[in-house]
Amino acid sequence: MSTVIASKKPKLSSQGQEKGDWRKWKAERKEMKKKIKESKLIHKLDKQKEEEKEKEEALQQSQSDNGAGRQYTVSVALPGSVLDNAQSAELRTYLAGQIARACAVFCVDEIIVFDEQDDDVKTVEGEFNGIGKKGQACVQLARILQFLECPQYLRKSFFPMHKDLQYAGLLNPLDSPHHMRKDDECDYREGVVLDRPNKPGKGSFVNCGMWKEVRIDKQLQSGLRVTVHMNMTQNKDSKVHNGVVVAPHKPRTEGGLYWGYSVRLASSLSKVLTECPHKGGYDLTIGTSEKGKDVDQMEVSSFRHMLVVFGGLQGLEASVDADPNLEVTDPSILFDLYLNTCPNQGSRTIRTEEAILITMSTLRQKITAAFVDVSSGS
Amino acid sequence: MSTVIASKKPKLSSQGQEKGDWRKWKAERKEMKKKIKESKLIHKLDKQKEEEKEKEEALQQSQSDNGAGRQYTVSVALPGSVLDNAQSAELRTYLAGQIARACAVFCVDEIIVFDEQDDDVKTVEGEFNGIGKKGQACVQLARILQFLECPQYLRKSFFPMHKDLQYAGLLNPLDSPHHMRKDDECDYREGVVLDRPNKPGKGSFVNCGMWKEVRIDKQLQSGLRVTVHMNMTQNKDSKVHNGVVVAPHKPRTEGGLYWGYSVRLASSLSKVLTECPHKGGYDLTIGTSEKGKDVDQMEVSSFRHMLVVFGGLQGLEASVDADPNLEVTDPSILFDLYLNTCPNQGSRTIRTEEAILITMSTLRQKITAAFVDVSSGS
Ligand SMILES: C[S@@+](CC[C@H](N)C(=O)[O-])C[C@H]1O[C@@H](n2cnc3c(N)ncnc32)[C@H](O)[C@@H]1O
Ligand SMILES: C[S@@+](CC[C@H](N)C(=O)[O-])C[C@H]1O[C@@H](n2cnc3c(N)ncnc32)[C@H](O)[C@@H]1O
Repeated sequence: MSTVIASKKPKLSSQGQEKGDWRKWKAERKEMKKKIKESKLIHKLDKQKEEEKEKEEALQQSQSDNGAGRQYTVSVALPGSVLDNAQSAELRTYLAGQIARACAVFCVDEIIVFDEQDDDVKTVEGEFNGIGKKGQACVQLARILQFLECPQYLRKSFFPMHKDLQYAGLLNPLDSPHHMRKDDECDYREGVVLDRPNKPGKGSFVNCGMWKEVRIDKQLQSGLRVTVHMNMTQNKDSKVHNGVVVAPHKPRTEGGLYWGYSVRLASSLSKVLTECPHKGGYDLTIGTSEKGKDVDQMEVSSFRHMLVVFGGLQGLEASVDADPNLEVTDPSILFDLYLNTCPNQGSRTIRTEEAILITMSTLRQKITAAFVDVSSGS
Repeated sequence: MSTVIASKKPKLSSQGQEKGDWRKWKAERKEMKKKIKESKLIHKLDKQKEEEKEKEEALQQSQSDNGAGRQYTVSVALPGSVLDNAQSAELRTYLAGQIARACAVFCVDEIIVFDEQDDDVKTVEGEFNGIGKKGQACVQLARILQFLECPQYLRKSFFPMHKDLQYAGLLNPLDSPHHMRKDDECDYREGVVLDRPNKPGKGSFVNCGMWKEVRIDKQLQSGLRVTVHMNMTQNKDSKVHNGVVVAPHKPRTEGGLYWGYSVRLASSLSKVLTECPHKGGYDLTIGTSEKGKDVDQMEVSSFRHMLVVFGGLQGLEASVDADPNLEVTDPSILFDLYLNTCPNQGSRTIRTEEAILITMSTLRQKITAAFVDVSSGS
């Protein structure tokens, strides 16, 4: 449980750096697909298991107060280089904020910032920008995304002053459901474990941004970010609130609430796909491009983990070119779907931050339809 | 013809200021609806006429080089007050640019900037901001929208230095089809009539942003902005190009091209509806709000002139409240449809500039579907 909790804590490192991951992943994927085809039985069994699990989860949900939970996740990936198109430091920050808001509005659960700078084409000629310039955009974008995702009352615990956040005052707040005011009532709250001793076995105290502190069931290390299920029936006059620490996905899977996004750094486009935090990977991957297939001509079928990938100034072609693990040149073969989400666009190019809102708006309808069909069909 | 041409020239005044317009409009609308109901015959006749007109237009199109034209128009209205939410002069300009781009991407033909400041609640107490402060946001927004719509090579003719355009360097270009480079080949071009005498009866010279000037068929006043249909078959070695002045809607109605938007100022929300430049007004009006009906539950039927209206920081309720011509308090009754275009939004509020992209993206699919049905049905 504690690893799940810790994963919500801001951490700007990319997992696993081994080369060859990509080929391994491709091979595994192929193998998997073959197996499924070979044996419809396995498929059927899997499906039965899934259905049983879903039923169980549905039962749990019906027992919870907030109605239906959401079992699927949506991830969005984009290159950090988009920040380099901004014309001033203020606009750079603002752009990061636009991306954060676009993702929050469409209930995106994970944002992956990938690096599309090619190490191999580095040259000794030309301007030297100083050590650490490369990849700076990725880290800055990730930092601002995390900063905005963090409820305001927790920011001073997790975000010390940093020059990446110099213009954070210009950022529009996400205003998502987990950003609560002191008096808001909700089954769940985000909090930080306080450095305040309690009797052994009595659990830790947590700051959940309320007037009173929250006493949780577990003794945890101070400074951890935790998701707390509040005990709503307790006596209003007691000196503290009581709550239970839960996995960060619970507000979504049981409460049906949008609970912010996690941020992941990937050192290349292929790592976006191979380093998926979900067992079994993303089961519906979508690449976006004006050269993709007309989005109006397709439907989405239900999925567990969807990934939508955007390119930067030069599109996903440039991201593929820059990736030493990828031998392909046509980005479309990397994805289950490769979509033009704005047919007949009235501008020669759509900017990445615009494309996120446009794409997620078209997909929202299709996702809704897919899951309505599923729930009414079973 | 010349009035049509002149209407493309930037002009920041709102037409017709008489009070009572709104009531008149409401009465007329009611009367019209009654008549239609009373006599199905009139309706049928109208329809026949329309069909004949459409057939005629279709014929014209099939004769033109560029395939199908677009007969319908899409207008977007929003309050100028949205600019006042920006946190700096740079971001104010940038926001105006975001709105321009959102409209261009979705081929919007008209943008109406309306004033939602209520004259009647003005008070002598409180801060005095100086004459001209009120409405400043509207004029600035309109000016930036027009500036961006104007092809770059025409800007010095139509946009003298102005403090509203101080940060215009930060604006992202629209990059729409009528923004052409010197060598681009296209049936149509925007130009400005030059102050260069020609023999009487020989027509004027026009700067269309090409290496050579364009001689048009008419003698027009210098400084006018004109749309020119280029003679594409002419000798490449001649000293000038030749062209014919056409109405600004021709590139759309005959060439099927997106040709930028016109900008209109309205002194209140009701004037957005009553001062429609199209005979017969808008025949499909849509208000937007998170309190509207779920967009997924509706379809769009074909129309001639669609209007989509957005609110500012306080939503369309505030625009209605501020309008002295409106006795209603519920904005939904002003429109044919009142839509929530982002059900299950993950942020408590969606900003107006985001709502434009989100809304137009959902509507794009429905508009496409409506007109595919029409063309395949007839
Ligand atoms: C500036 S655009 C890239 C343009 C680039 N010239 C190309 O050909 O792809 C940045 C990103 O926005 C997204 N995008 C732009 N237009 C799109 C469209 N019509 N449909 C889907 N995604 C689009 C894509 O993810 C693209 O990589
Ligand atoms: C900041 S919002 C206004 C919020 C305001 N509190 C309200 O209740 O309407 C600005 C504008 O964005 C548009 N908008 C915001 N959310 C929307 C949604 N879910 N569906 C359609 N339009 C929306 C509307 O035009 C709205 O007036």
